[in-house]
Amino acid sequence: MTPSLLSPSRRVRRTPFSDGVEAAGVKAYTVYNRMLLPTVFRSVQEDYRHLKTAVQVWDVACERQVELRGPDAARLMQRLTPRDLSAMQIGQCYYVPIVDETGGMLNDPVAVKLAEDRWWISIADSDLLLWVKGVAAGIGVDVAVTEPDVSPLAVQGPRAEDLMVRVFGEGIRGVRFFRFGRFAFQGRELVVARSGYSKQGGFEIYVEGGDLGMPLWDALMAAGADLDVRAGCPNLIERVEGGLLSYGNDMTRANTPHECGLGKFCNTERAIGCIGRDALLRVAKEGPNRQIRAIAIEGEAVPGCDRAWPLMAGAEQVGQVTSAAWSPDHQVNVAIGMVEKSHWAPDTALQVQAPDGLRQAVVKQAFWA
Amino acid sequence: MTPSLLSPSRRVRRTPFSDGVEAAGVKAYTVYNRMLLPTVFRSVQEDYRHLKTAVQVWDVACERQVELRGPDAARLMQRLTPRDLSAMQIGQCYYVPIVDETGGMLNDPVAVKLAEDRWWISIADSDLLLWVKGVAAGIGVDVAVTEPDVSPLAVQGPRAEDLMVRVFGEGIRGVRFFRFGRFAFQGRELVVARSGYSKQGGFEIYVEGGDLGMPLWDALMAAGADLDVRAGCPNLIERVEGGLLSYGNDMTRANTPHECGLGKFCNTERAIGCIGRDALLRVAKEGPNRQIRAIAIEGEAVPGCDRAWPLMAGAEQVGQVTSAAWSPDHQVNVAIGMVEKSHWAPDTALQVQAPDGLRQAVVKQAFWA
Repeated sequence: MTPSLLSPSRRVRRTPFSDGVEAAGVKAYTVYNRMLLPTVFRSVQEDYRHLKTAVQVWDVACERQVELRGPDAARLMQRLTPRDLSAMQIGQCYYVPIVDETGGMLNDPVAVKLAEDRWWISIADSDLLLWVKGVAAGIGVDVAVTEPDVSPLAVQGPRAEDLMVRVFGEGIRGVRFFRFGRFAFQGRELVVARSGYSKQGGFEIYVEGGDLGMPLWDALMAAGADLDVRAGCPNLIERVEGGLLSYGNDMTRANTPHECGLGKFCNTERAIGCIGRDALLRVAKEGPNRQIRAIAIEGEAVPGCDRAWPLMAGAEQVGQVTSAAWSPDHQVNVAIGMVEKSHWAPDTALQVQAPDGLRQAVVKQAFWA
Repeated sequence: MTPSLLSPSRRVRRTPFSDGVEAAGVKAYTVYNRMLLPTVFRSVQEDYRHLKTAVQVWDVACERQVELRGPDAARLMQRLTPRDLSAMQIGQCYYVPIVDETGGMLNDPVAVKLAEDRWWISIADSDLLLWVKGVAAGIGVDVAVTEPDVSPLAVQGPRAEDLMVRVFGEGIRGVRFFRFGRFAFQGRELVVARSGYSKQGGFEIYVEGGDLGMPLWDALMAAGADLDVRAGCPNLIERVEGGLLSYGNDMTRANTPHECGLGKFCNTERAIGCIGRDALLRVAKEGPNRQIRAIAIEGEAVPGCDRAWPLMAGAEQVGQVTSAAWSPDHQVNVAIGMVEKSHWAPDTALQVQAPDGLRQAVVKQAFWA
């Protein structure tokens, strides 16, 4: 595949950290929520090794926030997801499937409960703001729905906690997984959660105010020099090994949460008022007919997966692969696919129509990481 | 500015014409509605000259359609826009500002009235599908809102009509501006409108069924060989000369239609039920405080405009430039900006903070084309 150039325009938005990303020698981007998201610094493999052994600072400003603020915020939030939010406490983060009236996935964000009447939804790649605004306008609910000036910066890797402590203090160690605390930086309080789009551990700093972007970036880089901190980004190999799904790649509106293996985040019986509840009650009862699976693809390193690759059982298509990469640690091509129930059992042998020809593949029991 | 590479992923969708685009030697892309949109074939300047003298075929599949189908389709459509649709006939296309409850622009699409109960909205760069689905779910209206398998292919340039006639027949000549007809290709009927994102004349073919994409692409290329038909794309220089706005570049949710110079497409008094009507009635009465203007920027060719450039009157910021390019025909940098009322009169001298320093600029009476 020939690498393509990306033309500059304001529409493909820069972030508060773009100056740092460029100075660090970013080699490639994707566009995510109409914003630049770095994909490569040294090489995908070198970035992978470094992520697994040291600490990286990631510009994930493209995880835009949808803010719900007002007396009906909690009620509107529950309307958006089949996950039961009734026991969710202030200070918690929940991974919440968001579905349309048919139960199709619109996004798989993280909801951050700041107060009873104030929530952030930290979104994957779709304009969820427009869905939430549309629903709110349609039902006439008393909530302000906005995209605030909040840009997440992730600190990921085994040395993430040590680096964070140097900038935010020892209190960081007390932040539990998918919880957040408020920590001061240059006299301002920032929401810091133990979360992130890797399996290596770390934090996401919700940088409120773009003017703080580069000062925080520089502070982290300076504090972590002896930890070998580097600019990084979500790593294709690492996320596929870990089975971290990518909205738009591994799932779309065509899929229910159950197909995505997210049934455990659905409490549809209890999610009273949730749009799509009727459709999902049926799905929850009957179970999905296809589901996300870890797939190992044989042969040498696969090329970039820029379209769905058909998964075949002989002449019959029984699924598709939507993310794939060569794993140095597992010495195999790790992949994420959607597979029909008839063929999703572990160790099922399949073939995948890769761009360079038909390859042997096998359904795995679980992801690698 | 260093050109950036774009990483491949399924999330950045290919189109039914991507094989043709690649074979034609595309040099760069942007990402538009999470889909590949070519930006350069030979060079922006060479593509510009060719567009103005011959005919080009453009992959604008990224102009996704939002389909409204059902007994309440027309009522829902009117709810979305301050433009009065009551006199719109089947077979017409209307440029319609779409606004939120505050009158902020959500998109500036073309509405295509296929039948009383069936509409397409051919969108600019935002997930308008989610807004329309959200509104429909919220108000509980009897309309199916979907993204159908429809991918526009544009044929633009002074020889566009001659080329279209060779593929679709003489009936093409009778299609009036912003009207459409249905024309057969390989036994299927396609909607063909006289429209497009250039000032050079031409058509947009709404290719219903991705399987028809490459056959139609190839048929146009074969039929137009002696017309010097080439693969092309929306051209930055030509569209700025012509004052064709780009959603996300020249306007965002922060702007009303009136600020964008689209007040003539608002009949807010008569657009009963339109979301944002209250806010826009006020704006229509008082007029905007800033508005889109053609701006000429002095000096040599400007670099790519990847962020808003402040427009200054001495030490005071009075606007911003959001699209700019060197025009070979006008021997000046043509630009689109948003300017405060105090400084928007024709011939007002301003300064623009370009990346390479402060430049003299002047507000023009009108766009160039």
